[in-house]
Amino acid sequence: MIAAYAPATVSNVACGFDVLGFALDEPGDIVGAALAEAPGAVIAGIHGDHGRLSWEPRRNTAAMAAQALLDRLGTRQGVALHVHKGLPLASGVGSSGASAVAAVVAVNELLGRPASREVLLACAMEGERAGCGAPHPDNVAPALYGGFVLARPADPPDIVRLPVPAGLACAVLHPHLEVETGAARALLGDTVPLGAAVQQWGNLGALVAALFTGDLALLSRSLDDVIVEPKRAGLVPGLAAVKAAAREAGALGCSLSGSGPSIFALAADAAVAARVGEAMRVAYAQAGGGVDADLWISPVGTSGARVVAGLAEEA
Amino acid sequence: MIAAYAPATVSNVACGFDVLGFALDEPGDIVGAALAEAPGAVIAGIHGDHGRLSWEPRRNTAAMAAQALLDRLGTRQGVALHVHKGLPLASGVGSSGASAVAAVVAVNELLGRPASREVLLACAMEGERAGCGAPHPDNVAPALYGGFVLARPADPPDIVRLPVPAGLACAVLHPHLEVETGAARALLGDTVPLGAAVQQWGNLGALVAALFTGDLALLSRSLDDVIVEPKRAGLVPGLAAVKAAAREAGALGCSLSGSGPSIFALAADAAVAARVGEAMRVAYAQAGGGVDADLWISPVGTSGARVVAGLAEEA
Repeated sequence: MIAAYAPATVSNVACGFDVLGFALDEPGDIVGAALAEAPGAVIAGIHGDHGRLSWEPRRNTAAMAAQALLDRLGTRQGVALHVHKGLPLASGVGSSGASAVAAVVAVNELLGRPASREVLLACAMEGERAGCGAPHPDNVAPALYGGFVLARPADPPDIVRLPVPAGLACAVLHPHLEVETGAARALLGDTVPLGAAVQQWGNLGALVAALFTGDLALLSRSLDDVIVEPKRAGLVPGLAAVKAAAREAGALGCSLSGSGPSIFALAADAAVAARVGEAMRVAYAQAGGGVDADLWISPVGTSGARVVAGLAEEA
Repeated sequence: MIAAYAPATVSNVACGFDVLGFALDEPGDIVGAALAEAPGAVIAGIHGDHGRLSWEPRRNTAAMAAQALLDRLGTRQGVALHVHKGLPLASGVGSSGASAVAAVVAVNELLGRPASREVLLACAMEGERAGCGAPHPDNVAPALYGGFVLARPADPPDIVRLPVPAGLACAVLHPHLEVETGAARALLGDTVPLGAAVQQWGNLGALVAALFTGDLALLSRSLDDVIVEPKRAGLVPGLAAVKAAAREAGALGCSLSGSGPSIFALAADAAVAARVGEAMRVAYAQAGGGVDADLWISPVGTSGARVVAGLAEEA
């Protein structure tokens, strides 16, 4: 049994809808992989999903991703996967992407590392098809590589790793709501005002520059979404209050994580992130309509997915 | 008499509509400034404009910019300006912006350099109001600072200087057409498809990253405008043929400069830029409907506007 860990990811990052994401250090998912007799990838166990994920390989992101890797390698070797969910489903922190990435990293290690990271990325994106119907790289790429990753839309996408300013940390508030990515996408409509689009790409260009130069003041001014978040704000009652509290407590910026309901805030260091997270929790308790929420504080994770030890006994 | 030079600039740069520009080394405009008795900025001479620019201070970008600087400094000192146009009007290479920048740099030098570059930029932007009705930084900022400059829309805009990969050079073909910025803007409409906007900001984010890392292959893939240029292509008959010829000859990318009619191409070095420019010239001679064109080859200019000697005799 070989096991691999892949972290939660924040996609969109305010101004980078569908092209930008970053990894946390934790929480994350672990997938264990073992050799099996019959060809193909099967699910041998799922833990932590409260019975909600499908064991059917073609409807499970981890199995889909592992199968894509087996196909790419041209092997008839069989693998059995044990999925340990550390991430809640449909929470906006890349849960399905983390399972897909952990699965391909574990299977690749099990088979003696025949595949490059570029191949692993492509296979993890195939796994994402099971989760959201289309292969998007904005969660799986940072889950695999760590740090900030820009995915320039193309076939295949250009994966551009961006520097992480030293100490940059994140607070994520996870309200116990579920937002389906498809429903959140349907809110957006087909067109956007040209002026808003110019503002958005000006913000994204400045955000990329700020990551390279470490200019946190510019990063902060750039963390503004004038297109997507305004249309999705109604999905998460209390969002405005949480955002205001985060900024008041010293956050560089605060916005929906992915399509929500999770809300992320970036901060200059872990101590500020902890204060920011506590302010977000308090604000949500007052404004969130009585819905419970989890709070995670983590550095922006620079190491990405990795092989881990110690799963054999549990699996 | 003090004189200052400001270079031509390429704005938009394919995927950076209204937020990105870069400077050439040449051609450019020169503005001479001398002390005058009456308060305020006046035009004492204009050369190279074929009599087309207004001498009325409130309708002349150089005088408007100089007046903004005098106002900002709170001085009743008078200045007389001699404008030497090296750039054709309404050509898409920042002609009015170059005059505005050269004027403020010359007047600032004449007065003992009381103003910072940030103040000079704000005053040059005021000058641009005379040229296009709104203060846009995407030509004046690179004309003043040199290199690539991203202007994040805000009030005031964030001016973000970006690195220039060593050797990067440019060919600009200037068809003898005139495109009014306002008319070119009216073609754009008020909305854009969301999918195209995502493609555009993915390209811009990748372009900014490519400038920091010097990844010319990524830069090349990012130099694509899926929103603005398709709507303006009809303004410049032959554009498609020129773009194809430029790419064929080794250009990293080719698109309209500003709102046209000039067409720029970026190349890895000056030798390639010269070959690319010649290919563009030949293609335009065949496809441009018999319209004459100028061709300029220049490094991407990293020095921006500067005080120059030797104008006293001519003025």
